Amino acid sequence: MLQNNLQLIKTTFEETIPMHKFLGLKIELLEKNFVRISVPFRKELVGDFRNNRWHGGVIATVMDSVGGVIGATHFTSLNDKIATIDLRVDYLRGAEPEAIMVEGKIIRFGNRILVARMKAFQNDKLIAEGKGVYNFIRMNTHSEEEADNNN
Amino acid sequence: MLQNNLQLIKTTFEETIPMHKFLGLKIELLEKNFVRISVPFRKELVGDFRNNRWHGGVIATVMDSVGGVIGATHFTSLNDKIATIDLRVDYLRGAEPEAIMVEGKIIRFGNRILVARMKAFQNDKLIAEGKGVYNFIRMNTHSEEEADNNN
Amino acid sequence: MLQNNLQLIKTTFEETIPMHKFLGLKIELLEKNFVRISVPFRKELVGDFRNNRWHGGVIATVMDSVGGVIGATHFTSLNDKIATIDLRVDYLRGAEPEAIMVEGKIIRFGNRILVARMKAFQNDKLIAEGKGVYNFIRMNTHSEEEADNNN
Amino acid sequence: MLQNNLQLIKTTFEETIPMHKFLGLKIELLEKNFVRISVPFRKELVGDFRNNRWHGGVIATVMDSVGGVIGATHFTSLNDKIATIDLRVDYLRGAEPEAIMVEGKIIRFGNRILVARMKAFQNDKLIAEGKGVYNFIRMNTHSEEEADNNN
Repeated sequence: MLQNNLQLIKTTFEETIPMHKFLGLKIELLEKNFVRISVPFRKELVGDFRNNRWHGGVIATVMDSVGGVIGATHFTSLNDKIATIDLRVDYLRGAEPEAIMVEGKIIRFGNRILVARMKAFQNDKLIAEGKGVYNFIRMNTHSEEEADNNN
Repeated sequence: MLQNNLQLIKTTFEETIPMHKFLGLKIELLEKNFVRISVPFRKELVGDFRNNRWHGGVIATVMDSVGGVIGATHFTSLNDKIATIDLRVDYLRGAEPEAIMVEGKIIRFGNRILVARMKAFQNDKLIAEGKGVYNFIRMNTHSEEEADNNN
Repeated sequence: MLQNNLQLIKTTFEETIPMHKFLGLKIELLEKNFVRISVPFRKELVGDFRNNRWHGGVIATVMDSVGGVIGATHFTSLNDKIATIDLRVDYLRGAEPEAIMVEGKIIRFGNRILVARMKAFQNDKLIAEGKGVYNFIRMNTHSEEEADNNN
Repeated sequence: MLQNNLQLIKTTFEETIPMHKFLGLKIELLEKNFVRISVPFRKELVGDFRNNRWHGGVIATVMDSVGGVIGATHFTSLNDKIATIDLRVDYLRGAEPEAIMVEGKIIRFGNRILVARMKAFQNDKLIAEGKGVYNFIRMNTHSEEEADNNN
């Protein structure tokens, strides 16, 4: 149903999710298995005040969002959900006070499990890598989908 | 030098780090190998607007801060730094629109490598677990590199 | 069906799984959400020949088995399967040339997703910690279980 | 000292490390930041006897070795060591009863911290991905601790 409605997904994620709106997150490119997200630098997001670097948690936050955004391109109902099972981030360089770009790609896609690989860049320089495992909760599958409800 | 100055660390982390100030992060308890941090619910931090749940990235952000806070209790210079090498979060339950409490504990401490184990709670219910590996960058180090010899 | 048949599970895992038999893996204690496994030292498993320490991969191997063993206590058919989605190990100390003990505990249990937390010990000393996320593949649930078949 | 001595490293890792010898591990290609390792199928390594698939722990074991092998190309003393700090594996497909190929690449290299990214293949099909963080323990280090300044 929503599968071709990439513009709706983009608007929803940018405008309706409070955390994304606060971050100023922009979906630069969205395909069924790939997303590119940019976030401008913002003073509230600094983690090391001595050199004005981003708090590493913000990069984790944007990486976490990757699964939700790409996952939504596979929704078959407006009530479908994506819940993160686990998230891992490797920080390779400190993030300077300028925009970050995060790219995410689906590397495993099943009926219930989604795995995404993410890379974060500043000026085309790799600053972090990540992985996220997500639980795809489809509302229109009758069976016992509610059983795994502890997330 | 700073080792007994827990109140200074608390004030610095709560007031001087922009991201912590924005989150309203409070250090409830701080010891040399343990920290308990609380963060009140705030609408800007919502990730799922349908049920008002926290964005999972915020929990990752607070977990990431654990290493910095505890690490600072071991600083020997005001210029020492803690940089996150990697961070991993397991989300066990969705985070309801109320305060979260994150506890962190050092499980490995060397001259250069610090590993922390974190747990996040809401009303004493475990909602997430994490691990962080940190790089301890000491500015006045000469020779004690062999101290991290536990591996 | 198998739920109370802990002895059968124990024998199957120790005797029928080639890797477990090679390792000499013993299930010391098995409950529905907890398992304790021991593995004797064996020269073929050494990773550092200068000090005769275990290869870290063996500890990862035993940790990976935790999900399979505990998961089996929840099987409802002999054809049910547990497939590892991801595994993470933190090595805290080098493993000396003597037996290791690995304990695993389920921290999330759903219809499809299982998450386990593991600890490895030598002489009651913690040497490693781990986490495993597993996919529970039940054969007697009609619906679209086969869709997530990429594992 | 050892930096150009790739053949010596290859022989040492294949013949002298008991676990590698047992696995029949072969270093197919070794450069300063890249390694390709093959392991033939062997019955003792099966984890699921119903379909003869490899135990996932073996893939973790080979991935863990990646850091040791590449790290050794940067040794400056025969007594230098590489110790794994943490290892993470994402299993994307079950491993069929045939040879596996694991490729590893250094993505962060400092004086003390080494991070590697690994991919496992069977017949050019990606079956697993991994990350390893390693502690580089140099025996003859004096002063170059600042080299790992990329964070």
